[in-house]
Amino acid sequence: MKKVLIFGSTGSIGENALRLLRKQSKTFEVLGLCANRNVSALYRQVKEFRPKYVCVGDEKKAGELYKRIGKKAVIFSGPAGLREFSSIKSDISLMAISGICCLEPLLINIKHTSRIALANKESVVTAGNMVFKEAFKHNTEILPVDSEINALFQILGHGKAANESTADIRSVYLTASGGALAGYRRNQLDKVSVGKVLAHPNWRMGKRITIDSATLINKGFEVAETRYFFNLEYEQIKVVIHKESLVHALVEYEDGSTQACLYPPDMKIPISFALFYPERFKSSEFSVFKKEISCNFRPLKTNEYPLFDVVIEAAKKEDNALVVLNACDEVVIDNFLEKKIKFLDMEKIIKSIMRNCPRSRVKTFKDVLYWDNWSRLKTKERLDRL
Amino acid sequence: MKKVLIFGSTGSIGENALRLLRKQSKTFEVLGLCANRNVSALYRQVKEFRPKYVCVGDEKKAGELYKRIGKKAVIFSGPAGLREFSSIKSDISLMAISGICCLEPLLINIKHTSRIALANKESVVTAGNMVFKEAFKHNTEILPVDSEINALFQILGHGKAANESTADIRSVYLTASGGALAGYRRNQLDKVSVGKVLAHPNWRMGKRITIDSATLINKGFEVAETRYFFNLEYEQIKVVIHKESLVHALVEYEDGSTQACLYPPDMKIPISFALFYPERFKSSEFSVFKKEISCNFRPLKTNEYPLFDVVIEAAKKEDNALVVLNACDEVVIDNFLEKKIKFLDMEKIIKSIMRNCPRSRVKTFKDVLYWDNWSRLKTKERLDRL
Repeated sequence: MKKVLIFGSTGSIGENALRLLRKQSKTFEVLGLCANRNVSALYRQVKEFRPKYVCVGDEKKAGELYKRIGKKAVIFSGPAGLREFSSIKSDISLMAISGICCLEPLLINIKHTSRIALANKESVVTAGNMVFKEAFKHNTEILPVDSEINALFQILGHGKAANESTADIRSVYLTASGGALAGYRRNQLDKVSVGKVLAHPNWRMGKRITIDSATLINKGFEVAETRYFFNLEYEQIKVVIHKESLVHALVEYEDGSTQACLYPPDMKIPISFALFYPERFKSSEFSVFKKEISCNFRPLKTNEYPLFDVVIEAAKKEDNALVVLNACDEVVIDNFLEKKIKFLDMEKIIKSIMRNCPRSRVKTFKDVLYWDNWSRLKTKERLDRL
Repeated sequence: MKKVLIFGSTGSIGENALRLLRKQSKTFEVLGLCANRNVSALYRQVKEFRPKYVCVGDEKKAGELYKRIGKKAVIFSGPAGLREFSSIKSDISLMAISGICCLEPLLINIKHTSRIALANKESVVTAGNMVFKEAFKHNTEILPVDSEINALFQILGHGKAANESTADIRSVYLTASGGALAGYRRNQLDKVSVGKVLAHPNWRMGKRITIDSATLINKGFEVAETRYFFNLEYEQIKVVIHKESLVHALVEYEDGSTQACLYPPDMKIPISFALFYPERFKSSEFSVFKKEISCNFRPLKTNEYPLFDVVIEAAKKEDNALVVLNACDEVVIDNFLEKKIKFLDMEKIIKSIMRNCPRSRVKTFKDVLYWDNWSRLKTKERLDRL
């Protein structure tokens, strides 16, 4: 019986994971569930899965849950509670908390689990070296849930992920649909509504990642993830526009042979892969060949998505730049979602913050927090001047 | 230094292999070259690669070669000479003799080499069980050169090829361009010229395989090859029409994840894979992403290529049927190439031979020879009655 902790159980990744585990009670035990504030969803999950441990990020909301479940589970709450919850021993932990808040529980939990199924992108983008060093030290395997990185893992397997020779790999290609605004001209982008940006053609995801898909910041982050997961050089990691979102990544070897991993755009597939690996979840729900299919690919052009280029430039510095960019991006997206700024303002502000960002090495969790805070502060100042 | 024997060195596979080995004299020694009757090409190869052993299938032609190279190499000739040549100890043997004549040297050579790079299709189609049993017995690895099977091997690796569990594989898909006559209507097929059939849109190959590509007999044979190479059930092996010939095969797992192997349609890639494995031949010549690409796939329909269905029906019997079909096909193709019969006559005759073929198990090389002869005889009788 594999004991599973789910961090971020009420989000879309968490809910999908529970949908998969529902019929697997003979092989998986849901040991703990953790959510930030959606107590009614959490209550429903607790009733169904009867975990021993529950964690509520928002302290005020914890009381509400306690009233409903009493002592049927140990309830942790607030930042200290989350740290305690992260120290529970498990076989697999699904890390699906969104944003930088995932980094601390991840760094703690790496010491107490055998496998991290990692859905959070920000932790690798901001602290990739730290995360993989800890994982190596504690012999914890990290399996990527993010579909592109998961696709690469399916092709390359643990071998490459565990720092084996990547000498025979010429390039890897991450695919990008181009997001909801593919084909928009610059002058159209300026006036684009929040609703339009949130209407991703192929994937149903959280709001931030959907907006990051429209600016291609998300793809830039995935390039950085790829570097850390597979120990590749930035020059080897390329992006191709593939509007159908069927192929998620490709690996091109030195002889010109190329392997692609494709599946219908549904997160249940990479989630199940990370949970069941090396087995496969048997499901007839998905097949790419249910109908005729067409897959088109073209190289991404320089300056086609200016913020993608900004991310890559920051990533190559391998210092505090991605921490700053990530935090700034989160703040401007919040402001865009609240309709306080326009779509292209996000780009303007991110570029301005990155221009004025002092360079500094990031070695510890505290360093990450420092530059994350610095960036949020500077971005808010910059927003006030708009 | 790896010692290499090349069976069929003057054919297109053999020539391509030598092109690859030309610059690899530090790691590969061309130990022996074998051709059927193209002595002038063989002489050129001998002069360049200076093999210790040479074999000429056609005894009369052997004298010609002897006059030109004298005692610079040991020359074998005729069927007995080929058997002797096949007993030479090597590290890798490329089996690129075309047709059923490859089976005997293959069965002999399996005992004397560490690796067979197998380009010949007929030997697996007619005697798959025998070939893989011998390979297992002598611990000889067989690497497929045929592009679709090679693509599957690139995805599945030795694990599956060596009879490991295939439980997590839902289906494999072989791609078919549809051949030179894709889109032709039945009444157009009746009058089609030899030239048209030989004009394959994507691949430059020998005449027989090009015609087998137009009828899709070739794809049926590959389905049988796939069964023997990867120990899959016929129900798991599917064919999709993919006119671009970039993707050669795909593997769909139980969770719906699918892996594809793609490369430009040039046999140098699968040949180099089979020779250099597990290393990769470093060449910037090939890349699928040199330009925008489009890949389209649609399932093959029943009766779309009637001869494909005939091959599958024969293959599923797992008896003498594929031996008979293979020989009959070779004879009718010769007759079509000589313009003695029309395109659709091939189908008519193959169907008639298969209808009247008595069932018999094939256990030994002699059994294969018997049914091969039987089929050639019956096909010639049938042709005479046309």
